Amino acid sequence: MQKSPPTGRAAVILAAGQGTRMKSPVPKVLHKIGGRTMLDRAIDAAFEVGCERVIVVVGGHSPSVRATAEKRVGAANIVVQDPPQGTGHAVNVARDALKDFDGTVIVTYGDSPLMAAKVLEPVFTLAAAADIAVLGFVAHDPGAYGRLVLDGDRLDEIVEAREASKEQFAIRACNSGVLACDRELLFSLLSDVKNENSKGEYYLTDIVGLARGRGLQPWVTMAQEHEVLGANSQAELAVIEKVWQDGVRRGFMDNGVHMPAPETVFFSWDTQVEAGVVIEPNVVFGDGVHVALGAVIRAFSHLEGCKVGEGALIGPYARLRPGADIGKDAHIGNFVEVKNVTVGEGAKANHLSYLGDGSVGAGANIGAGTIFCNYDGFFKHRTVVGERAFIGSNSSLVAPVTIGHGAITGSGSVITQDVPPDALALTRAPQVAKESWAAVFRERKLAEKAAKRSSSEAVAQEKS
Amino acid sequence: MQKSPPTGRAAVILAAGQGTRMKSPVPKVLHKIGGRTMLDRAIDAAFEVGCERVIVVVGGHSPSVRATAEKRVGAANIVVQDPPQGTGHAVNVARDALKDFDGTVIVTYGDSPLMAAKVLEPVFTLAAAADIAVLGFVAHDPGAYGRLVLDGDRLDEIVEAREASKEQFAIRACNSGVLACDRELLFSLLSDVKNENSKGEYYLTDIVGLARGRGLQPWVTMAQEHEVLGANSQAELAVIEKVWQDGVRRGFMDNGVHMPAPETVFFSWDTQVEAGVVIEPNVVFGDGVHVALGAVIRAFSHLEGCKVGEGALIGPYARLRPGADIGKDAHIGNFVEVKNVTVGEGAKANHLSYLGDGSVGAGANIGAGTIFCNYDGFFKHRTVVGERAFIGSNSSLVAPVTIGHGAITGSGSVITQDVPPDALALTRAPQVAKESWAAVFRERKLAEKAAKRSSSEAVAQEKS
Amino acid sequence: MQKSPPTGRAAVILAAGQGTRMKSPVPKVLHKIGGRTMLDRAIDAAFEVGCERVIVVVGGHSPSVRATAEKRVGAANIVVQDPPQGTGHAVNVARDALKDFDGTVIVTYGDSPLMAAKVLEPVFTLAAAADIAVLGFVAHDPGAYGRLVLDGDRLDEIVEAREASKEQFAIRACNSGVLACDRELLFSLLSDVKNENSKGEYYLTDIVGLARGRGLQPWVTMAQEHEVLGANSQAELAVIEKVWQDGVRRGFMDNGVHMPAPETVFFSWDTQVEAGVVIEPNVVFGDGVHVALGAVIRAFSHLEGCKVGEGALIGPYARLRPGADIGKDAHIGNFVEVKNVTVGEGAKANHLSYLGDGSVGAGANIGAGTIFCNYDGFFKHRTVVGERAFIGSNSSLVAPVTIGHGAITGSGSVITQDVPPDALALTRAPQVAKESWAAVFRERKLAEKAAKRSSSEAVAQEKS
Repeated sequence: MQKSPPTGRAAVILAAGQGTRMKSPVPKVLHKIGGRTMLDRAIDAAFEVGCERVIVVVGGHSPSVRATAEKRVGAANIVVQDPPQGTGHAVNVARDALKDFDGTVIVTYGDSPLMAAKVLEPVFTLAAAADIAVLGFVAHDPGAYGRLVLDGDRLDEIVEAREASKEQFAIRACNSGVLACDRELLFSLLSDVKNENSKGEYYLTDIVGLARGRGLQPWVTMAQEHEVLGANSQAELAVIEKVWQDGVRRGFMDNGVHMPAPETVFFSWDTQVEAGVVIEPNVVFGDGVHVALGAVIRAFSHLEGCKVGEGALIGPYARLRPGADIGKDAHIGNFVEVKNVTVGEGAKANHLSYLGDGSVGAGANIGAGTIFCNYDGFFKHRTVVGERAFIGSNSSLVAPVTIGHGAITGSGSVITQDVPPDALALTRAPQVAKESWAAVFRERKLAEKAAKRSSSEAVAQEKS
Repeated sequence: MQKSPPTGRAAVILAAGQGTRMKSPVPKVLHKIGGRTMLDRAIDAAFEVGCERVIVVVGGHSPSVRATAEKRVGAANIVVQDPPQGTGHAVNVARDALKDFDGTVIVTYGDSPLMAAKVLEPVFTLAAAADIAVLGFVAHDPGAYGRLVLDGDRLDEIVEAREASKEQFAIRACNSGVLACDRELLFSLLSDVKNENSKGEYYLTDIVGLARGRGLQPWVTMAQEHEVLGANSQAELAVIEKVWQDGVRRGFMDNGVHMPAPETVFFSWDTQVEAGVVIEPNVVFGDGVHVALGAVIRAFSHLEGCKVGEGALIGPYARLRPGADIGKDAHIGNFVEVKNVTVGEGAKANHLSYLGDGSVGAGANIGAGTIFCNYDGFFKHRTVVGERAFIGSNSSLVAPVTIGHGAITGSGSVITQDVPPDALALTRAPQVAKESWAAVFRERKLAEKAAKRSSSEAVAQEKS
Repeated sequence: MQKSPPTGRAAVILAAGQGTRMKSPVPKVLHKIGGRTMLDRAIDAAFEVGCERVIVVVGGHSPSVRATAEKRVGAANIVVQDPPQGTGHAVNVARDALKDFDGTVIVTYGDSPLMAAKVLEPVFTLAAAADIAVLGFVAHDPGAYGRLVLDGDRLDEIVEAREASKEQFAIRACNSGVLACDRELLFSLLSDVKNENSKGEYYLTDIVGLARGRGLQPWVTMAQEHEVLGANSQAELAVIEKVWQDGVRRGFMDNGVHMPAPETVFFSWDTQVEAGVVIEPNVVFGDGVHVALGAVIRAFSHLEGCKVGEGALIGPYARLRPGADIGKDAHIGNFVEVKNVTVGEGAKANHLSYLGDGSVGAGANIGAGTIFCNYDGFFKHRTVVGERAFIGSNSSLVAPVTIGHGAITGSGSVITQDVPPDALALTRAPQVAKESWAAVFRERKLAEKAAKRSSSEAVAQEKS
């Protein structure tokens, strides 16, 4: 091998598979790992490894795959393989789209969500020196994978499992399907690939043999098996999700996040958790969450699209929804839902409340059972609670409404008009007590019960 | 072996063990796997494999075991083994109950909950050709299991572990305890079993040796080890539950159910989930749940005895109890409990509500904090919410009560009388604001706090 | 070895490490396993194994470590190692504190939370007969551990991994770091330890070689690897937590606690659960919980500092906080929080309630959505609900307040005054119905929506 000058990078992502084994209305490559579609992950990796062009090969069957890809790479970089005629054919349909590109092309897969940039980088690095760079892995159970016949890191041949000799079949070095080489060479070799096989398909891997026939030398670089796993079924998807989650959990722990039961905490692809945060068992993160240092996320909490400030205490059983912005040292307690509300420093909403659309000032206290009545059936309105205000338990704040700073609302009030600062507002009928009423009621109801019982016994007797 | 004509099938289920190692007030065979008692599972398997007679051998100690069995097989098919004198004795007490039965009898166990029909079928099949059919398994760690001394599939001998030669002890083919043979032969052999052993018990397995002595040939068919696991302790029960849950999870995934964390989802024996359903982490299913295609069950949800319609969105933190019937595209959100309520198509109850006994019309919106007040301390009553009605937040609907279609209730109302269609109903005291009241209150309370503090300091000083 | 007369026992616990790999503001030894700090666990073990003196060696950097230790062992038993110069140096700083102690000293570690009394006992037992007793273990992957060169149970030498011959490197018997010997001998040997090594540190293990040089014989006793695990990172802490939880789960199951999914139940160091209790999946126990026999803890429950009486039914989604004392056969249901409240026999609070500071009488029924309004922003007050009282749904009980026995409160009431026994109390504005109001409102809102839409379309048109 000799070092070559660096050249441009491009990727061809194969995403045309139907994924019938998923048995799902969702196309295979739109299934998610860590809350992000496998297709987006493949595109992320390509961009992150420095590809200036990213071509996505889609099937004819799925407008949603095309739409997802188009948002990321633009319509000019979508090519359609319809009908599918093998991996070689899939790459070949990208020929025109790349005709003006000068450099190295890598072929990757829309259903291999752990093929991150750090997995692809060594392939490009190798391709800078080798005629063709192939990504291999040592399989725990090689099964039906293509075997790599190697001479050191030189690749002599890729043998399909069913065509392997007994000796070849025992090889555990396998083909991941990823390879990279110069664009011109890639398509030149693809022109020579034939479909004279049992399936009548054009296989990408055939270019290795063709290259050898031209006196060229393919080389191999190895990845971990889990990095090249493909997801063809719900069960495989679940395995990959677990591998991904375990990696993310480990990463957060290495950065000083404390989790007594990391296996019960589920992260999303973009979760940000700072050092010194404590996450108790059974916490689920959706997309778009940032947790600042010193915050504690207690058990059974569910967070999506929200920010948790320094030293804030969340849960147990807190649900933070998109737009929840929880301030420093604020508390959001059990059975409390917060959506699109900014909660100020040190404010508290500890019990059984719904805070939707609005803001809570610093130091305010939201009593148990408080509801921000944000929806009139047609529009959403905002509730503004001032600093150090005290909202009595079981209050209904009918938005749009403002509670002034330092104001108090009486328990059980329905607040429909703004409350001035430092005022008390309440809506309350006077308490009425009817002496002995409960005793009389109880006797009457017990008599009713007895009557019902004897009546049903009479019916039973009649029937018997 | 020769094929014999098919004969009738019967099962003798041994369920007399006390299960003292469970250390539980619940008898061993009434412990559940996937929400179904082990005894019911054994009876299920027997019926499913085509047994026309199912005899349950119970101990003298447990009326609840007898009662459970009687519901399934009838009093005539319960026999009592009291006191217990070994497995051979247990089967022998079924002699009279089966005296008019003509065909093959299988002996199974009330504490082996994974011995499903598919495990028993090969034993019956073998018994149609062999004199005696024995179910074996390859043990990971044979320990104290009886060893099968085999010649191909022919069984020469069953050797107890403690009586095994060193060579026999190394055998990993073990006896599951399940066997099948012709009724007449079974009881004829049992008549010859002696209890001349250290425990003074009659062992069922002795019939293998007795059969050999008569020139008959027992044969063996093998099951997976986990299929024949018996539960004698809470820890063993937990292991079997995990094996069972893993199998069910795998089955649902193979059918197109999407579960990012299947190991955190717990199913019941009769859970039905259609393809394309998404189940997020930490969901628990009790008995009697059906989830239709396209529904999404979000994290931390708990479902029992309910139906979830197509495309419905459940949770997170939704609790559906028996009789909850959630319509197409309806939403049941966080901290919402639904019991014995039909929820119409597209209706929503998204936050902190209790819906008990009644119905919610299509397109209705149940505001946060709504309570169906269904119980007066003596009787339960129904709440009927009409189509497209809008129930304001924190409403109490005091049943029996009907909210007409398209009607609105004001936030915080206590609705005790029926509301006509398209009307607004509310109960509300006027809002009163007392200017500066909160500021004065705050000063007074702060003064009280200061007074308390100095008083306790004075006490402390006195004491020191 | 010869038996010596029993002597006094003392422990030197090394707790001076900074634990920078934890990347946490919390000092390493104050991280918790099962809710108890590793330092407390080391001190617990020392006391439990009968140490009359427990010396804790702390670093100069962490006042909170010193404070935690001081509460347990007193200021006189804290010694400071600053700066740290190795394990030998750490033990040596305890020399003066132990100068009047006569007996055997064990050296243990503040970051090895599974080194319980039963692990230390054999070391003391051995030390009664051997010159020096060393605790070893067979490492699954010996890596960088010091290797024990053994002759039977006699220890010839401890060889550091990096100085080991190839043969020595293959040894899997490793040094746990724990050793015990007579105080006088220990400090005499430590006086001879030199720091002539690459790190310039004084190593405790050097005393083994020095003892051999004096003609003395160290002996080894072996522990399980997991018992001697040290926690130097969050990931290691999580592994140890899992080992600990698994052991506790197993212990409870062996005592007759039924858990279908034990791996999802998290216990605390002092959790007490009696036989016959059922714990469903996903339950978290904080400190100080006692659950009596026959109680059922349903899924998704969270318990801290509380008592659950015989046959009580808790959850799903129940949160019991400190001071919750739940009586026999009482029910605490979903989305209910109980703090500092005694709940009488057979009482029920089944739905969406907050019970804080007070008591609920036997047989009382707390309606859905009930709030004990215990906090006025400055002080906490008590709510007393009498026996067999019936609290209507969505009631706010404004403390201090007493509801008499047998009394009823109407749904949605705000109760601010005491209610006499057997009385009915309510606060309720009359129900008002405005015919057709909802229909008119709907039309107006739909018109507004249409107007907004056409206005935004106009803006869009203008822009385009």
